[in-house]
Amino acid sequence: MSQVNLRIDQIHKAIEREDEVTLNNLLAEVSASETARLIEGSAPEKRIIIWDVLDVQKRAGVLKSVSGDVRQYLIDNTSHDELLESLFLLQPDELADIDEDLPGTVINAMIAAMDELRKRRYNSVKHYPDNTAGGLMDTDTTAVRADVSILSVLRYLRLLRNKEGDMPEQLDSLMVVDRTNKLLGVLPLSDIVSLPTDTLVADILDHTFQAIPVDASQEKVARIFQDCDLLSAPVVDGNYRLLGRITIDDVVDVIQAQADAKVLSSAGLKNHTDMFSPILSSAYKRGYWLGINLVTAFVAAWVIGLFEAVIEQLIALAVLMPVVASMGGVAGSQTLTIVTRGLALNQIGRTNITQLIIHEASVVFLNGIVWALTVAAIALYWFGDPMLGAVFGIALMIVLITGVVAGIFIPLILQRMSIDPAVAGSVVLTTFTDAIGFFSFLGLAKILI
Amino acid sequence: MSQVNLRIDQIHKAIEREDEVTLNNLLAEVSASETARLIEGSAPEKRIIIWDVLDVQKRAGVLKSVSGDVRQYLIDNTSHDELLESLFLLQPDELADIDEDLPGTVINAMIAAMDELRKRRYNSVKHYPDNTAGGLMDTDTTAVRADVSILSVLRYLRLLRNKEGDMPEQLDSLMVVDRTNKLLGVLPLSDIVSLPTDTLVADILDHTFQAIPVDASQEKVARIFQDCDLLSAPVVDGNYRLLGRITIDDVVDVIQAQADAKVLSSAGLKNHTDMFSPILSSAYKRGYWLGINLVTAFVAAWVIGLFEAVIEQLIALAVLMPVVASMGGVAGSQTLTIVTRGLALNQIGRTNITQLIIHEASVVFLNGIVWALTVAAIALYWFGDPMLGAVFGIALMIVLITGVVAGIFIPLILQRMSIDPAVAGSVVLTTFTDAIGFFSFLGLAKILI
Repeated sequence: MSQVNLRIDQIHKAIEREDEVTLNNLLAEVSASETARLIEGSAPEKRIIIWDVLDVQKRAGVLKSVSGDVRQYLIDNTSHDELLESLFLLQPDELADIDEDLPGTVINAMIAAMDELRKRRYNSVKHYPDNTAGGLMDTDTTAVRADVSILSVLRYLRLLRNKEGDMPEQLDSLMVVDRTNKLLGVLPLSDIVSLPTDTLVADILDHTFQAIPVDASQEKVARIFQDCDLLSAPVVDGNYRLLGRITIDDVVDVIQAQADAKVLSSAGLKNHTDMFSPILSSAYKRGYWLGINLVTAFVAAWVIGLFEAVIEQLIALAVLMPVVASMGGVAGSQTLTIVTRGLALNQIGRTNITQLIIHEASVVFLNGIVWALTVAAIALYWFGDPMLGAVFGIALMIVLITGVVAGIFIPLILQRMSIDPAVAGSVVLTTFTDAIGFFSFLGLAKILI
Repeated sequence: MSQVNLRIDQIHKAIEREDEVTLNNLLAEVSASETARLIEGSAPEKRIIIWDVLDVQKRAGVLKSVSGDVRQYLIDNTSHDELLESLFLLQPDELADIDEDLPGTVINAMIAAMDELRKRRYNSVKHYPDNTAGGLMDTDTTAVRADVSILSVLRYLRLLRNKEGDMPEQLDSLMVVDRTNKLLGVLPLSDIVSLPTDTLVADILDHTFQAIPVDASQEKVARIFQDCDLLSAPVVDGNYRLLGRITIDDVVDVIQAQADAKVLSSAGLKNHTDMFSPILSSAYKRGYWLGINLVTAFVAAWVIGLFEAVIEQLIALAVLMPVVASMGGVAGSQTLTIVTRGLALNQIGRTNITQLIIHEASVVFLNGIVWALTVAAIALYWFGDPMLGAVFGIALMIVLITGVVAGIFIPLILQRMSIDPAVAGSVVLTTFTDAIGFFSFLGLAKILI
């Protein structure tokens, strides 16, 4: 068991003291991906101290799992020869994932040093976009024919191992193909080890297996793996010819990256955000989101500006108006979250949208009655003005209901426009609820008070 | 390949028409977990229409993967005999996950009908909390001794299969134990099928394997699986005795549920929120969060109330004040997101916190200069008041910087108090940035204008 929680402080202390011996000993017990997270969480000058004590094997693992900006930084600070040593230890599909961060001379040297098989595997993965099944797959499949017995399969595998010295990583099943490399089925290793040796492969072939089209999106790949509880799956072209194999460890990385991207994008941050990226570049990326927010905030300010005369007559309106806007934002964002999630899970369609609207509207109506009465009572107590209380309560009801309606329709409209509602939804929503909140409260006050 | 996107509308139409034949044909091609999502996305009366046409096998899969509230609804609307038929098809660890939703009489009937082995597996999983390694594991392990040859292992596995008719699901490796059931290592099936049959298990034993303590949290289990790219891992007690095995499909479910919980909790929604849960119960759950927000909104209103006299003199302050508050919230939430994520990944400690503060402060300082000058210019243009512009710009600078500082310290403090920063962080932050925003803007105006 890795006791990384206890060790992390010791490691940081060793870095502080630049005590390479202790650091080396401590890092020896930490996995490559934990080391990658440690490097990501350290300031740039510390990153190099950690990187410098890693052996070539650990460096390969770190290069594989560290985030893009940090990888670039490590690569820029390592000699080409040292880089090549670590790159030799990576699988062709792993190389294809990171090679855009590598200098051209290193890529050329790396390709030049590859044997034919490795070069073929590398080129075939490079051929497909990163975010598709083709980009995720490894072409290192082990395939057998259907007309042979388990005994022959075992003999073949022993020969293969004897020749190559190793088996593909995470091998849980063999692919069964015909003479034209067309996929016929999947043969689990657990069948090979447990069935009588004279059993024919054809007789035990699993025909209900899932084959993944090479152009399937990585989201679709993740969905298929989860739906069918797969450990690995074959990747095929349009003619059902076997191209490669995707293993679940790559799928877990996709699921994790998607979850991470959702959290980051809701704050307007890019995926793979580096905690210690150069200040100017961070400032630029974050400033962009601040600028968008500034525009939306001025929309709200403009709405308030329409009612300057009303506020002048009753300053209490200025005191209470942020309450109305903020409550609309909260009610709306709850509905927005449910609808955005439902869309992502493919649960919302033309047939149930009406029921969803009725459900959400009923929920917010009940809440509206409770909270409208509450705020009206508070306003009455605070400012001693019954009419202000009434306006406050009615405006709150209006903004809660419009917030919920917006929470339903904004993600639907954004998706129709091919904009990810998880990214843009909450900005559009709060702009809307702020504007409606200020408008209804101040507008009602203008009419009624 | 499942073409669920195309089919979902046809399915909903068949439900509308209550056309059971078409529905049955369409659902036959949809996996159990897709069916579970379909049921979740349907209104309660539609759920039963879908459920009623499912066969006993599909029902078992749906019960396993549907969310808690919906499962309860399905169970309440199914006869006990029909329930039992589906429950018989679930693994003991799957039963243990859902049995709290089952009526007592059904549980008793289910246990009474179990054979000894099944009962033992069920009871041993029930013994551990759901959210630990013990709750995730299956006790259905296949173990061998270290002093035997591969040939003996193969013979043993064939005998076992012959006797039980089936192998454990997702079997990728065997456990190697000594006479006292103490775990010695893990033997991958890929070694069994590819190494010479006279090889001794002891000679090829992988001693660097990861064993998971039975009381490890499910988050820790997920971390270990990802760090080590595991397909399965043994679960052991404090004396390193083998208790069971966790497979990666359960880990993927944990990772997905964690990601889902993060998105939902950021909007104050409970995990496993049912889109169509009864209106009163939905209203109550959402009302709770609206109530918390109301309190925080009144904190901001109270701050504004302190400056009524200042606003009365210059109504433009009321127009512009929401801009200041909202910009502070955005800058703060960007930092909050980065720090919360860093804490979750164990990347932030005493040694790098100072550097993080310097980094974030520098980023926001640069942005502050740009946006403070921008808003000052806009205010000057809009209201023709240079002093108002100056106050607006300075207040914006103040709220951006305090927002970022709060974005760093709020999650640190919450974590120290054992409160999840991902849930409570943004409420606390916006309360703070709103109060500081209004206070600095109106306070500066009081002093300077």
